[in-house]
Amino acid sequence: MATPAGRADVNHAWRLVSRPQGRVKESDFEWAETRVPEIGEGQILARIFYLSLDPAQRMWMEPVDSYMPMLPLGSVMRGGTLGVVEASRNAAYAVGDIVQGMGGWQEYYAGDAAGWMKLTRIPGVPLTAFLAAMGHIGFTAYFGLRDIAQPKPGETLVVSAAAGAVGSIAGQIGKIAGCRVVGIAGSDEKCNWIARELGFDAAINYKKENVRDALKRACPNGIDVYFENVGGDILDAVLERINVGARVAVCGLISRYNATGPVPGPSNFANILLKRVRVQGFIVRDYMPRFAEAAAKIVPWLAEGKLKYRVDIAEGLRSAPAALNKLFDGMNKGKLLVRVSEEPL
Amino acid sequence: MATPAGRADVNHAWRLVSRPQGRVKESDFEWAETRVPEIGEGQILARIFYLSLDPAQRMWMEPVDSYMPMLPLGSVMRGGTLGVVEASRNAAYAVGDIVQGMGGWQEYYAGDAAGWMKLTRIPGVPLTAFLAAMGHIGFTAYFGLRDIAQPKPGETLVVSAAAGAVGSIAGQIGKIAGCRVVGIAGSDEKCNWIARELGFDAAINYKKENVRDALKRACPNGIDVYFENVGGDILDAVLERINVGARVAVCGLISRYNATGPVPGPSNFANILLKRVRVQGFIVRDYMPRFAEAAAKIVPWLAEGKLKYRVDIAEGLRSAPAALNKLFDGMNKGKLLVRVSEEPL
Repeated sequence: MATPAGRADVNHAWRLVSRPQGRVKESDFEWAETRVPEIGEGQILARIFYLSLDPAQRMWMEPVDSYMPMLPLGSVMRGGTLGVVEASRNAAYAVGDIVQGMGGWQEYYAGDAAGWMKLTRIPGVPLTAFLAAMGHIGFTAYFGLRDIAQPKPGETLVVSAAAGAVGSIAGQIGKIAGCRVVGIAGSDEKCNWIARELGFDAAINYKKENVRDALKRACPNGIDVYFENVGGDILDAVLERINVGARVAVCGLISRYNATGPVPGPSNFANILLKRVRVQGFIVRDYMPRFAEAAAKIVPWLAEGKLKYRVDIAEGLRSAPAALNKLFDGMNKGKLLVRVSEEPL
Repeated sequence: MATPAGRADVNHAWRLVSRPQGRVKESDFEWAETRVPEIGEGQILARIFYLSLDPAQRMWMEPVDSYMPMLPLGSVMRGGTLGVVEASRNAAYAVGDIVQGMGGWQEYYAGDAAGWMKLTRIPGVPLTAFLAAMGHIGFTAYFGLRDIAQPKPGETLVVSAAAGAVGSIAGQIGKIAGCRVVGIAGSDEKCNWIARELGFDAAINYKKENVRDALKRACPNGIDVYFENVGGDILDAVLERINVGARVAVCGLISRYNATGPVPGPSNFANILLKRVRVQGFIVRDYMPRFAEAAAKIVPWLAEGKLKYRVDIAEGLRSAPAALNKLFDGMNKGKLLVRVSEEPL
């Protein structure tokens, strides 16, 4: 909400007020209205127009420190955002700059500029690309595949949650690397999208097919590289067909994030030994010093149409808690965003 | 059994005749008596004096190809051995040479020399060292620690089955590398041995102590490196205290080898992601081209007394099936060997 002069006046935010048990409920959050604060020296005020919703956000609600410090109850929920600078007391940022950072589940971010990147529009590519194919999503796919999984041309790459934000990019980068790419997704529509639009060599609908049988058909020479987003039974099925010397990049374990108790690990864990597999977890934040390297690769791929993505946009910040659950139901089609306000022209 | 002229005449062997369910039983094997065959061009005849018993042998009995092809029923059971050449039609081997190779659970090996190494005695070090601190045991510890786990000085290394053949060597190499080394073993006697004789910084008796609590005390700065020999609950307890960027070298999973059905993997699998852990399986056979490198390090450590070991010798080939189970009961004290015949002078 803006004053007549166009300056933000009121901010709305979702604050985390209780630790969810299993799926999130709207009552785990509080809809708060506050005045937009004055910014101090070195700070910026950004109007948020897109909020990214990601499976990892469910983990950030847990009462533990992870790779991010525990979020205290009462805090604005954490989340990646795109915004436009409306006021700045930092020489590096001017009014009108488009910026990306952890703005949170709110309409306005007012605070330090540390960790906020200024974006340069890519000709012909929508701004959503910064949340769907660049930023934490695209860089996760890029470093997870290139640095952790290290696919070689001709190898078979399997991607789980392959129609998801990260998985769909990882699979396409696998194609660019010369792999046979097999995606596992949760609907025929998603399978069609990754096979027909994105160029995956095969797609498996895990809700309709027996994944073990389907992997046998789709990966006649076994699996050399696995880009892991889900965990659980699918991980076990992949480990059953894993090749000697295979690499597993553990990017996410979405099947576990809503668990309310201990979850058994993969029963085929022994194949890590027998097949000399390297299983490695990674977090994109560790790669921040190398983001420019990834961007330099991804921007031309996007501009040339080699890397495609789609977005699923929930309208209005109010919708964020309910929309987040779509990720765990597999109901989103493409990168899930919330339109918090209109894109700047 | 030898002819009056001293040449072997009769061979005894344990042949695998049924696939064990759980622990091995003597009835899974057949005691066979045959004539020692004439050797062909390029072959050797070796009298076996020590047979190595190793947890992996239990895996080799399963009806599946692993890193070794499946052993067909009716075959002489596979096993590493030390022998002395009694006849040779291979210019590289002379009568009296001491050799190491996969001689199997039998008294005489007659066959190709491929894969057999000639040994040079190490002054002051018994021949058992070639099965207890060199060969597959010592080289497993060496490459698993140095190549896979890559400990840095000052890091905390945890070793499971730490009084076992591989674990005890791995822990000592960890000390040489400048780590704080914590061993997990199954008796007070074993814990005393690794802490007092081998110089481990702490030892945990997992049969008496709560491993989670004990690891908290013994690893106040968390765990940077884990040398994994057992799997199961101990793996889970270690993952609970694992540090960011830790390395887990998966050398063995002895807790699973007698399992008759699927075994759940580690419940703390998610920490591989959250803590960006690298979990990597390895098999010493893959390092064969680099065995000389490991030997060049280990021989002086042995000669200088920096690397200690002990052996637990079962008398007579007849005892092999029963003795193997000692490994799974944790009843052996040191590297488990069978004395098949007397050491050459």
